[in-house]
Amino acid sequence: MGVLSKLCVAVALIAAAQTPACADESGVKLVLQVSEGTRQAKLALTMAKRDLELDPRTRVEIVAYGAGVQFLQSDTLFSDEGPKVAALAARGVVFKVCENSLRASNLGRGDLLPRVQVVPSGSLEIARLQREGYAYIRP
Amino acid sequence: MGVLSKLCVAVALIAAAQTPACADESGVKLVLQVSEGTRQAKLALTMAKRDLELDPRTRVEIVAYGAGVQFLQSDTLFSDEGPKVAALAARGVVFKVCENSLRASNLGRGDLLPRVQVVPSGSLEIARLQREGYAYIRP
Amino acid sequence: MGVLSKLCVAVALIAAAQTPACADESGVKLVLQVSEGTRQAKLALTMAKRDLELDPRTRVEIVAYGAGVQFLQSDTLFSDEGPKVAALAARGVVFKVCENSLRASNLGRGDLLPRVQVVPSGSLEIARLQREGYAYIRP
Repeated sequence: MGVLSKLCVAVALIAAAQTPACADESGVKLVLQVSEGTRQAKLALTMAKRDLELDPRTRVEIVAYGAGVQFLQSDTLFSDEGPKVAALAARGVVFKVCENSLRASNLGRGDLLPRVQVVPSGSLEIARLQREGYAYIRP
Repeated sequence: MGVLSKLCVAVALIAAAQTPACADESGVKLVLQVSEGTRQAKLALTMAKRDLELDPRTRVEIVAYGAGVQFLQSDTLFSDEGPKVAALAARGVVFKVCENSLRASNLGRGDLLPRVQVVPSGSLEIARLQREGYAYIRP
Repeated sequence: MGVLSKLCVAVALIAAAQTPACADESGVKLVLQVSEGTRQAKLALTMAKRDLELDPRTRVEIVAYGAGVQFLQSDTLFSDEGPKVAALAARGVVFKVCENSLRASNLGRGDLLPRVQVVPSGSLEIARLQREGYAYIRP
Protein backbone atom coordinates (compact mmCIF):
# COMPACT_ATOMS: atom_id res chain seq x y z
CA MET A 1 0.00 0.00 0.00
CA GLY A 2 1.52 3.32 -1.09
CA VAL A 3 1.84 6.42 1.04
CA LEU A 4 -1.16 7.96 -0.66
CA SER A 5 -3.49 5.07 0.04
CA LYS A 6 -2.28 4.83 3.62
CA LEU A 7 -3.07 8.50 4.01
CA CYS A 8 -6.55 7.99 2.64
CA VAL A 9 -7.23 5.06 4.94
CA ALA A 10 -6.02 7.11 7.90
CA VAL A 11 -8.29 9.96 6.91
CA ALA A 12 -11.21 7.58 6.46
CA LEU A 13 -10.61 6.17 9.95
CA ILE A 14 -10.48 9.64 11.46
CA ALA A 15 -13.69 10.61 9.69
CA ALA A 16 -15.38 7.36 10.71
CA ALA A 17 -14.36 7.88 14.33
CA GLN A 18 -16.01 11.27 14.30
CA THR A 19 -19.22 10.19 12.62
CA PRO A 20 -21.01 7.81 15.05
CA ALA A 21 -21.96 10.34 17.70
CA CYS A 22 -23.81 12.42 15.14
CA ALA A 23 -25.06 9.95 12.60
CA ASP A 24 -26.28 6.68 14.04
CA GLU A 25 -29.09 5.71 16.32
CA SER A 26 -27.09 4.41 19.25
CA GLY A 27 -28.20 5.56 22.67
CA VAL A 28 -27.65 9.16 23.57
CA LYS A 29 -25.18 10.29 26.21
CA LEU A 30 -26.45 12.66 28.87
CA VAL A 31 -24.70 14.69 31.54
CA LEU A 32 -27.11 16.00 34.17
CA GLN A 33 -26.02 18.91 36.35
CA VAL A 34 -27.17 18.95 39.97
CA SER A 35 -26.13 22.25 41.54
CA GLU A 36 -29.20 23.23 43.53
CA GLY A 37 -30.91 21.52 46.44
CA THR A 38 -32.56 18.16 46.89
CA ARG A 39 -35.51 18.97 44.64
CA GLN A 40 -33.28 19.20 41.59
CA ALA A 41 -31.46 16.01 42.61
CA LYS A 42 -34.77 14.15 42.72
CA LEU A 43 -35.62 15.46 39.23
CA ALA A 44 -32.27 14.24 37.91
CA LEU A 45 -32.67 10.78 39.46
CA THR A 46 -36.17 10.42 38.00
CA MET A 47 -34.98 11.62 34.60
CA ALA A 48 -32.13 9.07 34.57
CA LYS A 49 -34.48 6.25 35.62
CA ARG A 50 -37.15 7.02 33.01
CA ASP A 51 -34.68 7.55 30.17
CA LEU A 52 -32.99 4.23 30.93
CA GLU A 53 -36.39 2.54 30.91
CA LEU A 54 -37.25 4.11 27.56
CA ASP A 55 -33.86 3.34 26.02
CA PRO A 56 -31.49 1.07 27.99
CA ARG A 57 -28.62 2.15 25.71
CA THR A 58 -28.74 5.67 27.21
CA ARG A 59 -25.57 6.61 29.05
CA VAL A 60 -26.03 9.00 31.96
CA GLU A 61 -23.55 10.83 34.14
CA ILE A 62 -24.79 12.98 37.02
CA VAL A 63 -22.34 15.68 38.09
CA ALA A 64 -23.03 17.42 41.41
CA TYR A 65 -21.46 20.64 42.61
CA GLY A 66 -22.27 23.63 44.80
CA ALA A 67 -25.50 23.20 46.72
CA GLY A 68 -26.12 20.01 44.72
CA VAL A 69 -23.74 17.74 46.61
CA GLN A 70 -25.99 17.04 49.59
CA PHE A 71 -27.97 14.15 48.10
CA LEU A 72 -24.80 12.08 47.75
CA GLN A 73 -24.17 11.93 51.50
CA SER A 74 -24.39 8.47 53.02
CA ASP A 75 -25.87 9.81 56.26
CA THR A 76 -29.60 9.14 55.94
CA LEU A 77 -30.30 12.04 58.27
CA PHE A 78 -29.21 14.40 55.49
CA SER A 79 -30.26 12.46 52.41
CA ASP A 80 -32.65 9.61 51.74
CA GLU A 81 -31.67 9.26 48.08
CA GLY A 82 -29.12 6.52 48.79
CA PRO A 83 -31.21 3.57 47.53
CA LYS A 84 -32.08 5.37 44.29
CA VAL A 85 -28.44 6.31 43.70
CA ALA A 86 -27.37 2.71 44.35
CA ALA A 87 -30.00 1.32 41.99
CA LEU A 88 -29.03 3.69 39.20
CA ALA A 89 -25.29 3.11 39.74
CA ALA A 90 -25.96 -0.62 39.38
CA ARG A 91 -27.52 0.14 35.99
CA GLY A 92 -24.47 2.08 34.85
CA VAL A 93 -25.27 5.64 35.82
CA VAL A 94 -22.08 7.43 36.88
CA PHE A 95 -22.13 9.84 39.84
CA LYS A 96 -19.45 12.48 40.17
CA VAL A 97 -19.07 15.18 42.79
CA CYS A 98 -16.92 18.30 42.82
CA GLU A 99 -14.05 18.24 45.32
CA ASN A 100 -14.16 22.01 45.83
CA SER A 101 -17.84 21.87 46.70
CA LEU A 102 -17.32 18.97 49.10
CA ARG A 103 -14.77 21.01 51.03
CA ALA A 104 -17.09 24.03 51.07
CA SER A 105 -19.78 21.78 52.59
CA ASN A 106 -17.34 20.32 55.15
CA LEU A 107 -17.72 16.88 53.59
CA GLY A 108 -15.03 14.32 52.85
CA ARG A 109 -14.91 11.21 50.71
CA GLY A 110 -15.88 9.19 53.78
CA ASP A 111 -19.22 10.98 53.99
CA LEU A 112 -20.29 9.94 50.50
CA LEU A 113 -22.40 7.07 49.23
CA PRO A 114 -20.43 4.15 47.76
CA ARG A 115 -19.42 4.40 44.07
CA VAL A 116 -19.56 8.20 43.98
CA GLN A 117 -16.49 9.55 42.20
CA VAL A 118 -14.77 12.75 43.31
CA VAL A 119 -13.54 15.10 40.55
CA PRO A 120 -11.41 18.24 41.00
CA SER A 121 -14.00 20.52 39.35
CA GLY A 122 -17.65 19.86 38.57
CA SER A 123 -17.72 22.44 35.79
CA LEU A 124 -14.54 21.20 34.09
CA GLU A 125 -15.91 17.66 34.27
CA ILE A 126 -19.19 18.75 32.67
CA ALA A 127 -17.23 20.55 29.96
CA ARG A 128 -15.06 17.49 29.27
CA LEU A 129 -18.15 15.30 28.98
CA GLN A 130 -19.74 17.70 26.51
CA ARG A 131 -16.51 17.59 24.50
CA GLU A 132 -16.88 13.80 24.42
CA GLY A 133 -20.37 14.10 22.94
CA TYR A 134 -22.50 14.14 26.07
CA ALA A 135 -25.58 16.35 25.85
CA TYR A 136 -25.95 18.73 28.78
CA ILE A 137 -29.18 19.02 30.70
CA ARG A 138 -29.77 21.07 33.80
CA PRO A 139 -32.96 19.54 35.26
CA MET B 1 -12.48 6.23 -11.26
CA GLY B 2 -10.36 3.79 -9.27
CA VAL B 3 -11.09 2.43 -5.82
CA LEU B 4 -8.65 4.86 -4.28
CA SER B 5 -10.19 7.94 -5.81
CA LYS B 6 -13.68 6.74 -4.90
CA LEU B 7 -12.50 6.35 -1.32
CA CYS B 8 -11.10 9.85 -1.31
CA VAL B 9 -14.29 11.31 -2.72
CA ALA B 10 -16.30 9.44 -0.09
CA VAL B 11 -14.06 10.75 2.67
CA ALA B 12 -14.31 14.26 1.28
CA LEU B 13 -18.10 14.01 1.30
CA ILE B 14 -18.12 12.77 4.90
CA ALA B 15 -15.82 15.58 5.95
CA ALA B 16 -17.88 18.13 4.06
CA ALA B 17 -21.06 16.88 5.70
CA GLN B 18 -19.48 17.40 9.10
CA THR B 19 -18.04 20.80 8.38
CA PRO B 20 -20.97 23.19 7.82
CA ALA B 21 -22.31 23.20 11.37
CA CYS B 22 -18.96 24.37 12.69
CA ALA B 23 -17.52 26.44 9.92
CA ASP B 24 -20.01 28.55 8.05
CA GLU B 25 -22.26 31.40 8.95
CA SER B 26 -25.61 29.72 8.41
CA GLY B 27 -28.21 30.30 11.09
CA VAL B 28 -27.69 28.64 14.42
CA LYS B 29 -29.91 25.87 15.75
CA LEU B 30 -31.31 26.30 19.24
CA VAL B 31 -33.15 23.95 21.57
CA LEU B 32 -34.80 25.79 24.45
CA GLN B 33 -35.77 23.82 27.54
CA VAL B 34 -38.95 24.81 29.36
CA SER B 35 -39.22 22.80 32.57
CA GLU B 36 -40.35 25.38 35.10
CA GLY B 37 -43.51 27.46 35.28
CA THR B 38 -45.06 30.03 32.98
CA ARG B 39 -42.40 32.64 33.63
CA GLN B 40 -39.73 30.50 31.96
CA ALA B 41 -42.09 29.71 29.09
CA LYS B 42 -42.59 33.43 28.46
CA LEU B 43 -38.80 33.94 28.45
CA ALA B 44 -38.40 31.14 25.90
CA LEU B 45 -41.11 32.53 23.61
CA THR B 46 -39.57 36.01 23.73
CA MET B 47 -36.11 34.59 23.06
CA ALA B 48 -37.35 32.64 20.03
CA LYS B 49 -39.19 35.70 18.66
CA ARG B 50 -36.23 38.08 19.05
CA ASP B 51 -33.67 35.65 17.67
CA LEU B 52 -35.82 35.02 14.59
CA GLU B 53 -36.13 38.79 14.09
CA LEU B 54 -32.36 39.21 14.38
CA ASP B 55 -31.59 36.25 12.12
CA PRO B 56 -34.50 34.63 10.24
CA ARG B 57 -32.28 31.63 9.45
CA THR B 58 -32.28 30.64 13.14
CA ARG B 59 -33.93 27.28 13.78
CA VAL B 60 -35.60 26.93 17.15
CA GLU B 61 -37.14 23.96 18.92
CA ILE B 62 -38.81 24.42 22.30
CA VAL B 63 -38.99 21.24 24.38
CA ALA B 64 -41.28 21.29 27.43
CA TYR B 65 -41.29 18.80 30.26
CA GLY B 66 -42.05 18.62 33.98
CA ALA B 67 -43.64 21.80 35.29
CA GLY B 68 -42.99 23.38 31.89
CA VAL B 69 -45.84 21.74 29.98
CA GLN B 70 -48.62 24.03 31.21
CA PHE B 71 -48.18 26.82 28.67
CA LEU B 72 -48.98 24.45 25.82
CA GLN B 73 -52.55 23.80 27.00
CA SER B 74 -55.25 25.00 24.65
CA ASP B 75 -57.55 25.94 27.55
CA THR B 76 -57.14 29.69 27.88
CA LEU B 77 -58.09 29.44 31.54
CA PHE B 78 -54.75 27.75 32.19
CA SER B 79 -52.57 29.40 29.57
CA ASP B 80 -52.82 32.56 27.49
CA GLU B 81 -49.70 31.82 25.44
CA GLY B 82 -51.67 30.20 22.61
CA PRO B 83 -51.46 33.11 20.15
CA LYS B 84 -47.70 33.48 20.68
CA VAL B 85 -47.16 29.73 20.21
CA ALA B 86 -49.25 29.78 17.03
CA ALA B 87 -47.38 32.77 15.62
CA LEU B 88 -43.99 31.19 16.30
CA ALA B 89 -45.07 27.81 14.94
CA ALA B 90 -46.14 29.58 11.73
CA ARG B 91 -42.58 30.92 11.49
CA GLY B 92 -41.08 27.45 11.84
CA VAL B 93 -40.51 27.12 15.57
CA VAL B 94 -41.11 23.51 16.64
CA PHE B 95 -42.87 22.77 19.93
CA LYS B 96 -42.43 19.40 21.60
CA VAL B 97 -43.81 18.16 24.89
CA CYS B 98 -42.83 15.16 27.01
CA GLU B 99 -45.44 12.39 27.14
CA ASN B 100 -44.43 11.35 30.67
CA SER B 101 -44.91 14.88 31.94
CA LEU B 102 -48.28 15.20 30.21
CA ARG B 103 -49.51 12.11 32.04
CA ALA B 104 -48.14 13.41 35.34
CA SER B 105 -50.14 16.61 34.76
CA ASN B 106 -53.30 14.66 33.81
CA LEU B 107 -53.16 16.09 30.32
CA GLY B 108 -53.75 14.32 27.03
CA ARG B 109 -53.01 15.20 23.42
CA GLY B 110 -56.50 16.66 23.16
CA ASP B 111 -55.67 19.29 25.75
CA LEU B 112 -52.79 20.71 23.76
CA LEU B 113 -52.52 23.61 21.35
CA PRO B 114 -52.50 22.68 17.65
CA ARG B 115 -49.11 21.72 16.10
CA VAL B 116 -47.56 20.71 19.43
CA GLN B 117 -45.71 17.40 19.01
CA VAL B 118 -45.64 14.78 21.76
CA VAL B 119 -42.33 12.97 22.36
CA PRO B 120 -41.72 10.00 24.67
CA SER B 121 -39.08 11.81 26.72
CA GLY B 122 -38.26 15.51 26.88
CA SER B 123 -34.71 14.86 28.04
CA LEU B 124 -33.94 12.25 25.37
CA GLU B 125 -35.34 14.61 22.75
CA ILE B 126 -33.13 17.45 23.99
CA ALA B 127 -30.13 15.10 23.92
CA ARG B 128 -30.90 13.99 20.36
CA LEU B 129 -31.20 17.58 19.21
CA GLN B 130 -27.84 18.44 20.77
CA ARG B 131 -26.36 15.45 18.95
CA GLU B 132 -27.73 16.95 15.73
CA GLY B 133 -25.92 20.21 16.39
CA TYR B 134 -28.57 22.16 18.28
CA ALA B 135 -27.19 24.44 20.99
CA TYR B 136 -28.91 23.99 24.34
CA ILE B 137 -30.23 26.93 26.28
CA ARG B 138 -32.23 26.81 29.48
CA PRO B 139 -33.83 30.27 29.63
CA MET C 1 1.48 16.50 -6.59
CA GLY C 2 -1.51 15.26 -8.56
CA VAL C 3 -5.10 16.30 -8.12
CA LEU C 4 -5.85 13.14 -6.16
CA SER C 5 -3.09 13.63 -3.64
CA LYS C 6 -4.00 17.29 -3.26
CA LEU C 7 -7.55 16.21 -2.51
CA CYS C 8 -6.36 13.75 0.12
CA VAL C 9 -4.16 16.32 1.78
CA ALA C 10 -7.07 18.76 1.83
CA VAL C 11 -9.33 16.15 3.38
CA ALA C 12 -6.66 15.28 5.94
CA LEU C 13 -6.37 18.94 6.88
CA ILE C 14 -10.14 19.27 7.25
CA ALA C 15 -10.27 16.15 9.43
CA ALA C 16 -7.32 17.32 11.50
CA ALA C 17 -8.96 20.69 12.02
CA GLN C 18 -12.03 18.98 13.37
CA THR C 19 -10.23 16.55 15.63
CA PRO C 20 -8.49 18.60 18.36
CA ALA C 21 -11.57 19.78 20.21
CA CYS C 22 -12.70 16.19 20.75
CA ALA C 23 -9.52 14.21 20.99
CA ASP C 24 -6.70 15.94 22.79
CA GLU C 25 -6.18 17.16 26.30
CA SER C 26 -6.00 20.87 25.62
CA GLY C 27 -7.96 23.10 27.95
CA VAL C 28 -11.71 23.02 27.70
CA LYS C 29 -13.78 25.93 26.47
CA LEU C 30 -16.68 27.06 28.63
CA VAL C 31 -19.56 29.45 28.04
CA LEU C 32 -21.32 30.40 31.28
CA GLN C 33 -24.82 31.84 31.08
CA VAL C 34 -25.78 34.53 33.59
CA SER C 35 -29.49 35.31 33.20
CA GLU C 36 -30.69 35.54 36.78
CA GLY C 37 -29.72 37.90 39.57
CA THR C 38 -26.47 38.69 41.32
CA ARG C 39 -26.30 35.33 43.10
CA GLN C 40 -25.87 33.46 39.81
CA ALA C 41 -23.32 36.04 38.64
CA LYS C 42 -21.23 35.42 41.77
CA LEU C 43 -21.39 31.65 41.11
CA ALA C 44 -20.20 32.18 37.53
CA LEU C 45 -17.29 34.41 38.61
CA THR C 46 -16.19 31.89 41.25
CA MET C 47 -16.48 29.04 38.75
CA ALA C 48 -14.33 30.87 36.20
CA LYS C 49 -11.71 31.73 38.83
CA ARG C 50 -11.43 28.19 40.20
CA ASP C 51 -11.37 26.52 36.80
CA LEU C 52 -8.58 28.84 35.64
CA GLU C 53 -6.62 28.01 38.79
CA LEU C 54 -7.09 24.28 38.19
CA ASP C 55 -6.25 24.50 34.50
CA PRO C 56 -4.89 27.82 33.18
CA ARG C 57 -5.55 26.64 29.61
CA THR C 58 -9.31 26.83 30.23
CA ARG C 59 -11.06 29.39 28.05
CA VAL C 60 -14.11 31.01 29.57
CA GLU C 61 -16.75 33.32 28.13
CA ILE C 62 -19.48 34.69 30.37
CA VAL C 63 -22.62 35.77 28.49
CA ALA C 64 -25.15 37.85 30.41
CA TYR C 65 -28.71 38.55 29.38
CA GLY C 66 -32.12 39.22 30.94
CA ALA C 67 -31.91 39.74 34.67
CA GLY C 68 -28.25 38.74 34.51
CA VAL C 69 -26.88 41.99 33.14
CA GLN C 70 -26.84 43.93 36.41
CA PHE C 71 -23.46 42.72 37.70
CA LEU C 72 -21.70 44.28 34.71
CA GLN C 73 -22.68 47.84 35.64
CA SER C 74 -19.81 50.13 36.52
CA ASP C 75 -21.85 51.97 39.13
CA THR C 76 -20.75 50.44 42.43
CA LEU C 77 -24.09 51.33 43.95
CA PHE C 78 -25.66 48.61 41.81
CA SER C 79 -22.83 46.10 41.57
CA ASP C 80 -19.68 45.45 43.54
CA GLU C 81 -18.40 42.75 41.19
CA GLY C 82 -16.24 45.20 39.20
CA PRO C 83 -12.85 44.19 40.67
CA LYS C 84 -13.57 40.47 40.12
CA VAL C 85 -14.66 41.11 36.54
CA ALA C 86 -11.52 43.17 35.90
CA ALA C 87 -9.25 40.51 37.40
CA LEU C 88 -10.83 37.74 35.33
CA ALA C 89 -10.80 39.84 32.14
CA ALA C 90 -7.07 40.39 32.70
CA ARG C 91 -6.67 36.60 32.75
CA GLY C 92 -8.49 36.21 29.45
CA VAL C 93 -12.10 35.68 30.51
CA VAL C 94 -14.43 37.30 27.96
CA PHE C 95 -17.55 39.14 29.14
CA LYS C 96 -20.45 39.66 26.76
CA VAL C 97 -23.79 41.28 27.39
CA CYS C 98 -27.00 41.18 25.36
CA GLU C 99 -27.95 44.51 23.74
CA ASN C 100 -31.68 43.75 23.95
CA SER C 101 -31.42 43.13 27.68
CA LEU C 102 -29.40 46.29 28.23
CA ARG C 103 -32.15 48.35 26.63
CA ALA C 104 -34.80 46.56 28.68
CA SER C 105 -32.82 47.52 31.81
CA ASN C 106 -32.41 51.15 30.65
CA LEU C 107 -28.66 50.68 30.45
CA GLY C 108 -26.28 51.83 27.74
CA ARG C 109 -22.70 50.98 26.85
CA GLY C 110 -21.54 53.87 29.02
CA ASP C 111 -22.99 52.22 32.11
CA LEU C 112 -20.88 49.08 31.73
CA LEU C 113 -17.58 48.02 33.21
CA PRO C 114 -14.56 48.39 30.89
CA ARG C 115 -13.85 45.49 28.49
CA VAL C 116 -17.44 44.22 28.49
CA GLN C 117 -18.53 43.47 24.91
CA VAL C 118 -22.08 44.13 23.72
CA VAL C 119 -23.65 41.50 21.43
CA PRO C 120 -26.99 41.76 19.60
CA SER C 121 -28.41 38.64 21.26
CA GLY C 122 -27.21 36.73 24.30
CA SER C 123 -28.86 33.51 23.18
CA LEU C 124 -27.52 33.65 19.60
CA GLU C 125 -24.05 34.34 21.03
CA ILE C 126 -24.30 31.33 23.36
CA ALA C 127 -25.45 29.19 20.44
CA ARG C 128 -22.56 30.35 18.25
CA LEU C 129 -20.06 29.58 21.01
CA GLN C 130 -21.49 26.09 21.42
CA ARG C 131 -21.13 25.62 17.66
CA GLU C 132 -17.46 26.55 18.06
CA GLY C 133 -16.97 23.82 20.65
CA TYR C 134 -17.69 25.71 23.86
CA ALA C 135 -19.42 23.65 26.53
CA TYR C 136 -22.49 25.34 27.98
CA ILE C 137 -23.00 25.65 31.70
CA ARG C 138 -25.77 27.52 33.44
CA PRO C 139 -24.43 27.99 36.99
